Amino acid sequence: MKSQIKICMIGAGRVGKNHSRAITRHVPSGKIVALVDPVIPVRNETAKEFGIESEFDTLEQAIGKIDFDAVIITTPTPTHLPLTALAAENGKHVFLEKPMALNIDECDEINRITTQHGILLQLGFMRRFDPEFVAAAARIEAGEIGQPMMVKSLTHGPGLPPPWARDLKTSNGMLAEVNSHDWDSTRWLMGSNYERVYTEVANFKGAANNIDTPNFYDNVLVNIKFESGGLGMISGVCPCGYGYDARVEIIGEKGIMQIGELQGQAVVVCTNRDQGLITPIFRTWPERFIWGYIYEMEHFVSCIQTDTKPKAGAEEGRWAVAGVLAGTRSFLEQRPVYLKEILGS
Amino acid sequence: MKSQIKICMIGAGRVGKNHSRAITRHVPSGKIVALVDPVIPVRNETAKEFGIESEFDTLEQAIGKIDFDAVIITTPTPTHLPLTALAAENGKHVFLEKPMALNIDECDEINRITTQHGILLQLGFMRRFDPEFVAAAARIEAGEIGQPMMVKSLTHGPGLPPPWARDLKTSNGMLAEVNSHDWDSTRWLMGSNYERVYTEVANFKGAANNIDTPNFYDNVLVNIKFESGGLGMISGVCPCGYGYDARVEIIGEKGIMQIGELQGQAVVVCTNRDQGLITPIFRTWPERFIWGYIYEMEHFVSCIQTDTKPKAGAEEGRWAVAGVLAGTRSFLEQRPVYLKEILGS
Amino acid sequence: MKSQIKICMIGAGRVGKNHSRAITRHVPSGKIVALVDPVIPVRNETAKEFGIESEFDTLEQAIGKIDFDAVIITTPTPTHLPLTALAAENGKHVFLEKPMALNIDECDEINRITTQHGILLQLGFMRRFDPEFVAAAARIEAGEIGQPMMVKSLTHGPGLPPPWARDLKTSNGMLAEVNSHDWDSTRWLMGSNYERVYTEVANFKGAANNIDTPNFYDNVLVNIKFESGGLGMISGVCPCGYGYDARVEIIGEKGIMQIGELQGQAVVVCTNRDQGLITPIFRTWPERFIWGYIYEMEHFVSCIQTDTKPKAGAEEGRWAVAGVLAGTRSFLEQRPVYLKEILGS
Amino acid sequence: MKSQIKICMIGAGRVGKNHSRAITRHVPSGKIVALVDPVIPVRNETAKEFGIESEFDTLEQAIGKIDFDAVIITTPTPTHLPLTALAAENGKHVFLEKPMALNIDECDEINRITTQHGILLQLGFMRRFDPEFVAAAARIEAGEIGQPMMVKSLTHGPGLPPPWARDLKTSNGMLAEVNSHDWDSTRWLMGSNYERVYTEVANFKGAANNIDTPNFYDNVLVNIKFESGGLGMISGVCPCGYGYDARVEIIGEKGIMQIGELQGQAVVVCTNRDQGLITPIFRTWPERFIWGYIYEMEHFVSCIQTDTKPKAGAEEGRWAVAGVLAGTRSFLEQRPVYLKEILGS
Repeated sequence: MKSQIKICMIGAGRVGKNHSRAITRHVPSGKIVALVDPVIPVRNETAKEFGIESEFDTLEQAIGKIDFDAVIITTPTPTHLPLTALAAENGKHVFLEKPMALNIDECDEINRITTQHGILLQLGFMRRFDPEFVAAAARIEAGEIGQPMMVKSLTHGPGLPPPWARDLKTSNGMLAEVNSHDWDSTRWLMGSNYERVYTEVANFKGAANNIDTPNFYDNVLVNIKFESGGLGMISGVCPCGYGYDARVEIIGEKGIMQIGELQGQAVVVCTNRDQGLITPIFRTWPERFIWGYIYEMEHFVSCIQTDTKPKAGAEEGRWAVAGVLAGTRSFLEQRPVYLKEILGS
Repeated sequence: MKSQIKICMIGAGRVGKNHSRAITRHVPSGKIVALVDPVIPVRNETAKEFGIESEFDTLEQAIGKIDFDAVIITTPTPTHLPLTALAAENGKHVFLEKPMALNIDECDEINRITTQHGILLQLGFMRRFDPEFVAAAARIEAGEIGQPMMVKSLTHGPGLPPPWARDLKTSNGMLAEVNSHDWDSTRWLMGSNYERVYTEVANFKGAANNIDTPNFYDNVLVNIKFESGGLGMISGVCPCGYGYDARVEIIGEKGIMQIGELQGQAVVVCTNRDQGLITPIFRTWPERFIWGYIYEMEHFVSCIQTDTKPKAGAEEGRWAVAGVLAGTRSFLEQRPVYLKEILGS
Repeated sequence: MKSQIKICMIGAGRVGKNHSRAITRHVPSGKIVALVDPVIPVRNETAKEFGIESEFDTLEQAIGKIDFDAVIITTPTPTHLPLTALAAENGKHVFLEKPMALNIDECDEINRITTQHGILLQLGFMRRFDPEFVAAAARIEAGEIGQPMMVKSLTHGPGLPPPWARDLKTSNGMLAEVNSHDWDSTRWLMGSNYERVYTEVANFKGAANNIDTPNFYDNVLVNIKFESGGLGMISGVCPCGYGYDARVEIIGEKGIMQIGELQGQAVVVCTNRDQGLITPIFRTWPERFIWGYIYEMEHFVSCIQTDTKPKAGAEEGRWAVAGVLAGTRSFLEQRPVYLKEILGS
Repeated sequence: MKSQIKICMIGAGRVGKNHSRAITRHVPSGKIVALVDPVIPVRNETAKEFGIESEFDTLEQAIGKIDFDAVIITTPTPTHLPLTALAAENGKHVFLEKPMALNIDECDEINRITTQHGILLQLGFMRRFDPEFVAAAARIEAGEIGQPMMVKSLTHGPGLPPPWARDLKTSNGMLAEVNSHDWDSTRWLMGSNYERVYTEVANFKGAANNIDTPNFYDNVLVNIKFESGGLGMISGVCPCGYGYDARVEIIGEKGIMQIGELQGQAVVVCTNRDQGLITPIFRTWPERFIWGYIYEMEHFVSCIQTDTKPKAGAEEGRWAVAGVLAGTRSFLEQRPVYLKEILGS
């Protein structure tokens, strides 16, 4: 088994900070040795906060100057393929944030190139490492609720996404940026691939936020038919304002299972009987999935140490992208879209 | 104001018993003076349990023999129009169980004939009288969560419906028999009509139950686009086995609201730390909506006493039927269906 | 079996109104035929609200003028013995609000006189009829949590009690007026009598409310040793301001059981992630125990109809008074007090 | 600021393992360089699990052989004074598990010797670092519920304690071993010292477990009067079997606050409507207070790095011991005991 794994973090923004915190404070078997970001003030701040000693504008520069085993890619979706390719060609293992890529061809190319170079690829589906999701999946697998018949998964987030993340051309929009996790979780928990999807979207806050991006939406509801015959629903709302909300309900032939809750902390207060009880809500995704983020990083480092294929890889990333593309085409064309239209038969 | 209202209950089965209990024990301003049902043992049992003095095979017979102000119709959907017509022609006010009818023409005829005879018509949408739904609707109306953007409403019921209620021809199936309440509630809470719907269904338990009815399904997920631009989801599972489950979530521009819960009673027990906490669930609809059933009967009686139009009438019943028909056509034709296809433009 | 039971309600205030509502709207086998209260405006209002046809200043006057089977006594504690005696001597069954009396002698006299006249006596311990308490007691009885080892029962109420109810001389104070239910419930659920009690009290709001009654307290904590060897805690806070709060936890040899909750309605809202979830709380006792009040009245009427001894009678009332007296002596003398000091050996 | 702090862990059992895990995995600024325990198999196992390189039978041996900044003492209470003294005399900072000591003299000696040698002393009150307790304390401090009037704190644990921990002579029994945290938390949250306490105990499971230790008890209820005039209740049950349960309720002049809950994970399942919902419970203390354990270790290391006095030190430890001693004397002598009897005036 390899000793401590050396990592180059790519992207010093919110996600990069979040993963840096997880590794630096909670994953002693990994060490961030370099930080890549062309925006220097942000990079300096993140590097300082987590004691990262080397900083670079680009991955190319880092590769030339410093020794490391792996990269963590947290930059916008269009960068995923070129950065992964560069890393793979230099023998660096890759942790790639969701969504995997903008289209299936890019997914296939990422898969091809990492396979060709014998590189481990892990996708950033932290819900697969969240203790509640993990326990739920194990209990479903063990048959506790019987064959899954229906799943409902929601992700509602508080803040307005940046422009690139709400433009279909640069990101595939909310279905990709917010709901990638739901695409992956529903497929995982149902134990089945999607057969077809139908999507409705709505735009309630665009005007107030001066958003004139074509096809912008801030609410989405997807109806899924799985290959197993089961049904699924994904909902996305962003910005929702009220907190960070990620919950799943699954109905199986034998019963129901709920994963997650709104309550973010068990401190309940009442000081006014006309108002009622007040309970903290989850405010942000780093708070809700703190253990998921820690455990996915532990898993990545451990997979490198033991040369093991990560639990969430190219296959999972590609299916989530396929769902996003089918879902997007559905609302654009106002009809159900089969996954085979996206993936070929 | 009229004094005590005399009622003829039509149907001595589960729903007839439930309404008889509500009136006899909790609505002193109403009195059931006659019970109509051709199945004599059931009728005798119900009459005895609630002290109903006169029994008849048919409404015709009751009208000839006894004085009353109103009927409550709890018999299968195909009987709704002829019974309502007979009651109206004889000047009896009508409480009609959901769904209103099998098709829009029947709904229109029910509306026409009750209007023509100056008869009050109340539909059996008891959720409009449930204290939680009522409080929620008032708070939405008051703007607490802002403009509603998305609603999700589910009804999952424990028992296999009788053959007539799962055959599209005789009942329009689960979307009508189980989810009529969701159709009404989502429209009510969103404050908007449906524009189009898309539906997926699944059949997981039909074979095990020897059901060969064409197009039988036991799981349904509807995706709704409202005229307001808002989105909606309705789910139905029946039989679900695990209990009676009726909950709603609404996301508005300012926040989220949840109505209802799984917990049926605040008695929590833990005797085994490997199993965990055990809490009673709502087992049946009479238990979950006990106050809704009481208050809808109070309302009906009070409307007759004061000659007031009931809160849930022909308009509400007709829209729910329209939703059912659009939803059914959608899964049969695998495409989104506009309400104007059902209702005309 | 007797037909409808005719009742004379004594006291037209909050408790009288509450019981009148329960009977008039939800207990068709009972009828309030007379209302007794010397305060005419309140009496007129209550009589009008519940359609009570005869009104009197005193029970004596009612007895002379009108026919009835039973009385419901809701007036202050010092009136309990004389009113019960008068009713019993005139052959009227008695529903008596808690606390039974001011001291053990009065309890004994109430018991003697009702027994002598063959009168049914029911005490107003509505928690014995609350569906949650009833289910909990049955499950404990069935052995679900094993032999009860420890019980904690609390009653915290929102409003400042009237002067007579906070003066030890006229009411025995909060331990009697607020916590009588806890005394009864803990004894019932533990299946054992009290052996000794120790009490601490505090006065936090008296000064702000200009209360100079000697020994006034607004917080109380009682520590109980049961004859079974088990332990108990009773807490009282009044006025607590935040709502009406009545909950119990019991730990048995096999596990824990919780009865009741703070949440008064399953409507949860979040519109501000810095504030969190807001859920209604129970605001008042009539709201929290609405079914307990209905069922205790049904029980009283049914016991009269079938000549059956009520579930909560003289024995239960006397033990609760004994607990109050022991608890009060304890904080006055700052020492544990044995029940045998109160009851004799 | 000092760089990484080197720690000698004393005790390789459950608590030693728990703290070793917290430091090794989640506190990168600390490093366990030595493990002391005379029981070699357990020591070897713990050392191996957490990669601790040096092992010793005694602290004396470690001090002679290896360089470190601090010790963490997790061994039984009678060892606390001599081990702290030895560490202090050698200039090692001390993290000392609760309870601080067996009596006030030992507490005073621990305080004297650490002060004399300028040694930092932190007591193992991890609830002071639990995010829920911390948030609650801050909100109380900010006045959200007004002046605290009453506090109830419980700790119920699943397993039978070892013989030394249930013998009053060697450990002061459950009030010390299980409820030390409640003593500290109630004093902290009420913002006041204890004035007097009254205690009742019960022994329900001793016989079945063949325990003949004098004065053994497995249930305890303490009634506290604070110097502020406020009231408090502490309950302990061990073994309780049903899980690990640690919750607090505080009532202030303006409202109520609840800290903690029974639910250990938000995964709710129902497969049987006659059984109801099943939710995981907290099973163990390391699970319930995982963040408390991490943050108290971070705090200890950080205090050493910055030469800052820890939040929970000699004062807090001494008061908790005083509460234990007063509580124990109370049930032995069946009377309320003033803290001044324990501490002198």
